[in-house]
Amino acid sequence: MTTLPETAPALIVPSSRPLAPRLAAELVGTAALVAIVVGSGIQATRLTDDVALQLLANSIATVFGLGVLIALLGPVSGAHFNPAVSLAEWWTTRREGGTGVTGRELAAYIPAQIAGGIAGAVLADAMFGEPLVQWSTHDRSAGNLLLGEVVATAGLILLIFGLARTDRLRFAPVAVASYIGAAYWFTSSTSFANPAVTIGRAFTDTFAGIAPASVPAFIGMQLIGTVVGLALVAVVFVRGRS
Amino acid sequence: MTTLPETAPALIVPSSRPLAPRLAAELVGTAALVAIVVGSGIQATRLTDDVALQLLANSIATVFGLGVLIALLGPVSGAHFNPAVSLAEWWTTRREGGTGVTGRELAAYIPAQIAGGIAGAVLADAMFGEPLVQWSTHDRSAGNLLLGEVVATAGLILLIFGLARTDRLRFAPVAVASYIGAAYWFTSSTSFANPAVTIGRAFTDTFAGIAPASVPAFIGMQLIGTVVGLALVAVVFVRGRS
Amino acid sequence: MTTLPETAPALIVPSSRPLAPRLAAELVGTAALVAIVVGSGIQATRLTDDVALQLLANSIATVFGLGVLIALLGPVSGAHFNPAVSLAEWWTTRREGGTGVTGRELAAYIPAQIAGGIAGAVLADAMFGEPLVQWSTHDRSAGNLLLGEVVATAGLILLIFGLARTDRLRFAPVAVASYIGAAYWFTSSTSFANPAVTIGRAFTDTFAGIAPASVPAFIGMQLIGTVVGLALVAVVFVRGRS
Amino acid sequence: MTTLPETAPALIVPSSRPLAPRLAAELVGTAALVAIVVGSGIQATRLTDDVALQLLANSIATVFGLGVLIALLGPVSGAHFNPAVSLAEWWTTRREGGTGVTGRELAAYIPAQIAGGIAGAVLADAMFGEPLVQWSTHDRSAGNLLLGEVVATAGLILLIFGLARTDRLRFAPVAVASYIGAAYWFTSSTSFANPAVTIGRAFTDTFAGIAPASVPAFIGMQLIGTVVGLALVAVVFVRGRS
Repeated sequence: MTTLPETAPALIVPSSRPLAPRLAAELVGTAALVAIVVGSGIQATRLTDDVALQLLANSIATVFGLGVLIALLGPVSGAHFNPAVSLAEWWTTRREGGTGVTGRELAAYIPAQIAGGIAGAVLADAMFGEPLVQWSTHDRSAGNLLLGEVVATAGLILLIFGLARTDRLRFAPVAVASYIGAAYWFTSSTSFANPAVTIGRAFTDTFAGIAPASVPAFIGMQLIGTVVGLALVAVVFVRGRS
Repeated sequence: MTTLPETAPALIVPSSRPLAPRLAAELVGTAALVAIVVGSGIQATRLTDDVALQLLANSIATVFGLGVLIALLGPVSGAHFNPAVSLAEWWTTRREGGTGVTGRELAAYIPAQIAGGIAGAVLADAMFGEPLVQWSTHDRSAGNLLLGEVVATAGLILLIFGLARTDRLRFAPVAVASYIGAAYWFTSSTSFANPAVTIGRAFTDTFAGIAPASVPAFIGMQLIGTVVGLALVAVVFVRGRS
Repeated sequence: MTTLPETAPALIVPSSRPLAPRLAAELVGTAALVAIVVGSGIQATRLTDDVALQLLANSIATVFGLGVLIALLGPVSGAHFNPAVSLAEWWTTRREGGTGVTGRELAAYIPAQIAGGIAGAVLADAMFGEPLVQWSTHDRSAGNLLLGEVVATAGLILLIFGLARTDRLRFAPVAVASYIGAAYWFTSSTSFANPAVTIGRAFTDTFAGIAPASVPAFIGMQLIGTVVGLALVAVVFVRGRS
Repeated sequence: MTTLPETAPALIVPSSRPLAPRLAAELVGTAALVAIVVGSGIQATRLTDDVALQLLANSIATVFGLGVLIALLGPVSGAHFNPAVSLAEWWTTRREGGTGVTGRELAAYIPAQIAGGIAGAVLADAMFGEPLVQWSTHDRSAGNLLLGEVVATAGLILLIFGLARTDRLRFAPVAVASYIGAAYWFTSSTSFANPAVTIGRAFTDTFAGIAPASVPAFIGMQLIGTVVGLALVAVVFVRGRS
């Protein structure tokens, strides 16, 4: 019953694979991720007034869902669901070689991820009887939130590319999901750490939303965090002589 | 920390096995699953008035219990506990070959699952001193809940048959349990996604119940979700030429 | 740095091993288990008035702690921590052969487990500044609680000996801990399922306590549950001809 | 569902590795650990008044984050992040041989861990707009808290060095993180169990802080707990003759 060999458990998938199913996986996966984040946020706010309990439900649902998505779709597309990760992989592949995404693939992955992010927010709104598209009014522009996004994204990149350098990307599903579960709480921004998810979350005026005006700075910080994360990889995971 | 924890085979069990213990496993497993869902719902509603906390306890107990049931009974019966899964496996086996359930087995699995679902609700009621059988008065007929059921079931089928196509059903216990944990929260219907469980939950007028009048539409949506899920499998997990 | 080979991952440890460290492991492990159950119950009741939240903290702490204890001590003693499990293993070994506990070992294991259970309750009381020994006043005698204990223990025995029959006791740490996490919620008795732990919990008048007068019936139900569990194993995990 | 998920080696890393990246890993890892503990504490106290819910969020975020950190950095530095662990490893290596830290490495590890602990507290304060450095006013000097620290640290050392003696340090990421998750709740001190983390937490006047005056006794108890833990290892994990 198998046709897809599990050559690449996650994140790095040989470019020789056909592009269409990979883009479908990125779109479906990012849509599902945003539907999980937004939908569980709506469910939680309807059931309790305690904001910590809302965030606890939101974060636990995301851990469960994200781990499953990476495990399921990793062998197809690498399960990036995140332009920052795709960009970092393209940059790393360019510098160090390997089978990561090419520039042409990067240019296809990012729109698929963004389209998925938006579709996921609309789907969550539909499931909960909310207006399908409504700009978020949730302002997230405070300076300390921006630092939170730098830290959240740097940690994510350090984790993924640290695992890659030590040849352990097979641990990515549980490790990345757990990381996001922690980062929901220890970063002040609740860890968006993903430009496609950030854009998608602007389309819903619910718990997990972000006002469109706050989006550019968040994405800027995520790109800075990506660079910081890659720098940390270089310092901690020094290449040996082997 | 691992790709996802591995376990013994699940979901697809060679038809050459004797049928009686397989049916016992489906009945016991579905009964246990419904007892977990219904029982934890009763416990939670007795201990707090916060509905989000009730659902959190309900969902966490289900994640723990479902994962164990699939791990334990997978090698015996495939641990379907769900007519939608059995149906999808029968259909896939017919089209693509393999060792999944035959039509005759399907006709035995489904009644065992439904009987188990009802028995589980009665057992939970008995443990908590509730009337053993009392039709639920919990109306679940809003249109957006129905969309929730389609999404919940489509996701479940995509997960199981996506893992099957990539030869990774050994991850099913943790993956399926985690998926349901997320789907409790991100779907508006709290993710029944299972006709046998839906029928069983009509027999208890407690937190997890569903009014009998709402059952047919839920099951209809679950069947539609099964078709949507199989279609997604075909798109994302394209068969290669190997 | 190794001397103990991982011959038996959990529950079944060859009788040829020296008995003293095995008894030390049963005593330390049962003490730690009861200290976790009682201690987390005290902590939770001091921090909130919401009983569901108390039970959630209590159950999550137990899942984390019990999984670690079985993983750590399984290779030494089998990590039973539970006279019902030791008894079932002795009975199974007598009937079916194998390397499980002998009658002489059983007679040493059970006192070690009970002593550990009591020591754990005293340690928890000491850590939280409670009287070291104070009989619990928590009455747990309602008939439906007794049914809960039968179900809880039957499920535990079905799980452990079902895993044993399918040669998968290596999954016991996560599976048993997860099962108990579910059983806290879906059984009306919050799943003691363990005579040594039941006795220990009589020594503390805090959240997890049980009045001494309720202890004998609980233990009786646990023994009945053990028999029911072994019967379910015989039905579901039919011995093949291999 | 697995024995416990496996990962790459942890805690004992051959001394032949270059020291600089190892120290970087200890510093980054300890900083991240303290940022997670302190940051999630601040987030939780801002979102709810229920202290049990605050501690639940705090403990769950720590479990997720600590497991990831040990998995990620274990192969680089051993992922101690804790002078008590480094000290116990040095002592064990001296007595029993092996490839653990040497005295010279120990003298470099401990300052890196302490610097990391302080940096992590400052980073968390910065992310949440708190004063970067403000001595904690959280008094933690009650005698029963001190017993809690002895128990918490003894359990941690028993776990790590028990896994080491049975050649199963590959389970350390999940096992250590789970242990800490339980110990947050079952010890009265919420389980600091780490001198570097204790020092770092003195630098923030928030939920997870500890008044500087309470620090020396906590560290003293942690050292006593280290000795108790090593004694328990000697009793339970008796060396065989092989």
